[in-house]
Amino acid sequence: MIKILVDAMGGDNAPYATVAGAVQALNKDKELYLILTGRQAEVEAELKKYTYDKSRLEIVDCPDVIDMNDIPTEAIKRKQSSLIAAYWMLKKEEDIRAFVTAGSTGATIVGGQLILGRIRGIKRPALCPAIPNSRGGVTLLLDCGANAECKSSMLCQFALLGSAYATAGFGIQNPKVGLLNNGTEEHKGDPLRQQTYKYMKQMQGINFIGNIEGRDIMMGDCDVAVADGFSGNVALKSMEGCGKLVLGVMKKEFSATLSSKMGYLFMRKAIKKMRTQLDFDKFGGALLLGLKKPVIKSHGSSKPVSIANSIANAASIYRGNLVPKVEQLLEDVDLSFTVDNDEA
Amino acid sequence: MIKILVDAMGGDNAPYATVAGAVQALNKDKELYLILTGRQAEVEAELKKYTYDKSRLEIVDCPDVIDMNDIPTEAIKRKQSSLIAAYWMLKKEEDIRAFVTAGSTGATIVGGQLILGRIRGIKRPALCPAIPNSRGGVTLLLDCGANAECKSSMLCQFALLGSAYATAGFGIQNPKVGLLNNGTEEHKGDPLRQQTYKYMKQMQGINFIGNIEGRDIMMGDCDVAVADGFSGNVALKSMEGCGKLVLGVMKKEFSATLSSKMGYLFMRKAIKKMRTQLDFDKFGGALLLGLKKPVIKSHGSSKPVSIANSIANAASIYRGNLVPKVEQLLEDVDLSFTVDNDEA
Repeated sequence: MIKILVDAMGGDNAPYATVAGAVQALNKDKELYLILTGRQAEVEAELKKYTYDKSRLEIVDCPDVIDMNDIPTEAIKRKQSSLIAAYWMLKKEEDIRAFVTAGSTGATIVGGQLILGRIRGIKRPALCPAIPNSRGGVTLLLDCGANAECKSSMLCQFALLGSAYATAGFGIQNPKVGLLNNGTEEHKGDPLRQQTYKYMKQMQGINFIGNIEGRDIMMGDCDVAVADGFSGNVALKSMEGCGKLVLGVMKKEFSATLSSKMGYLFMRKAIKKMRTQLDFDKFGGALLLGLKKPVIKSHGSSKPVSIANSIANAASIYRGNLVPKVEQLLEDVDLSFTVDNDEA
Repeated sequence: MIKILVDAMGGDNAPYATVAGAVQALNKDKELYLILTGRQAEVEAELKKYTYDKSRLEIVDCPDVIDMNDIPTEAIKRKQSSLIAAYWMLKKEEDIRAFVTAGSTGATIVGGQLILGRIRGIKRPALCPAIPNSRGGVTLLLDCGANAECKSSMLCQFALLGSAYATAGFGIQNPKVGLLNNGTEEHKGDPLRQQTYKYMKQMQGINFIGNIEGRDIMMGDCDVAVADGFSGNVALKSMEGCGKLVLGVMKKEFSATLSSKMGYLFMRKAIKKMRTQLDFDKFGGALLLGLKKPVIKSHGSSKPVSIANSIANAASIYRGNLVPKVEQLLEDVDLSFTVDNDEA
């Protein structure tokens, strides 16, 4: 059994979407055992709607809920909340392997650092979504918002973390690492990028392919794109916005005239495939990478399928031995030469 | 007559695309007078293919060409190049109103600053493309790469410049200005964003709506999105990459089966409309904003229609009195309180 915690109260559509997603994941993977944290009565009411193996699901009653307006550092003191209770269990109980939440990003990050804790040697955890690319696979982009300000030594660690995730989570061998920059030439970017480029060129343990530009993320020219949390967040959300525009225009245009409606009948499959290609939730949320156990932050607006995908992703990351892989890399790869500009 | 310079040798498809685009623009707008700089024989050979009003087009022979591998600061010493010769004419001849090039971005920026010069009071020019949004209009995004590092006082000027462009180029009254950040809450972002937010809230002369996220650019929640050149570039290219992926998938999927091919016959119009919605060149290149005259950088891979759109955009910006508008704003709006962090 793989025990995974699910924050049943996190996200805009909780507990409906979280419970439905948990049941979907449970029914698909017979090795899963899920622990749902949340308001017991509400969670039970949702669970009644479905058929599932009751011996592989339990509820831990948490009367309190953290919402988007809470200040993260304050919120994590509320131990009766579904998110914080989950973090304490994750920390204390060895056989619980991972945690999935669609709750507040800020509280997820703060709780992860202060309660669960980082892998020994990791400076800062990074938020890492898997982005669909034109090769039908994924490009991992990190950091996407856990650290608005970064230093070269952090970006170098992100390269290691992302490489380990690409292998453990998606079976990508020798993943290609690119540095997100405003041009591909070696001298491009601000001092942070210029310094990081030099370090990454020297680094062992990663397959560094050089600078990449924003457009290369979805083109899939690399497997791991390394960014500071500010520009990574901007990149991710810009792509999401573009995808949203496309889906919106499709919806409108494809039902605008009788002719296009008829065409739609013929093209349903192709259009469905297009939608899937743009589905940022397909690959299961953003991994908060660098913590002692995998924590997955699913989108606040997660639907059941997104939650199910995030749970499946958490199981796959655990099965892929992510954390031991990271620990091994940290042991094998000497990063002591990555001195930051302001320390130099 | 509105005299506009066109760099006939700039871009991957020059002089074919530049000459074809110039002729298209000339035939569409009877008030235009175009001056093409480039290798005379090559340009004439291209011009022979078309019918156009010869009294409104002239060629200035420039035997030299700057390519992407040239170092900008070195390249601008080569006065016989089509780009640099154009800048000198733009500077010296008062009745030449604007300049369009698909050549090297670096040389365009350096030449603009060192030869043509900035509007009095402008710290740094910014590269500002018009991005198609879900409302069918444009969102202006600046800076998109002229300045990898920015200070608060620069971002505040960009807000003024972008507002003037929105009105002069696109007729948008009281344009909404957003600050590109990694979240919408007031406290979000790095120190640069936090400081800039405070200044923009106090600024006269702009309609500041607060922080925006990457996804809001193409959603069209604001008319002007202000960014440092690094993250603006990342945002722009991330959206381009997403658009490219969508168009690629469309092309593949819509001709994959007999059924989808039939569907395509019915949906041609709708699909064409979708393509147009994702066309980043539709609105005519990126304006290098803050110089004494409008300079438009068209994409390096510009096709004739992109060049034609850039020329039309240049004419429209001149007609909209962009530069006087910027000068007026600089006179009316006191920005002296926008002291940068490192000066404070």
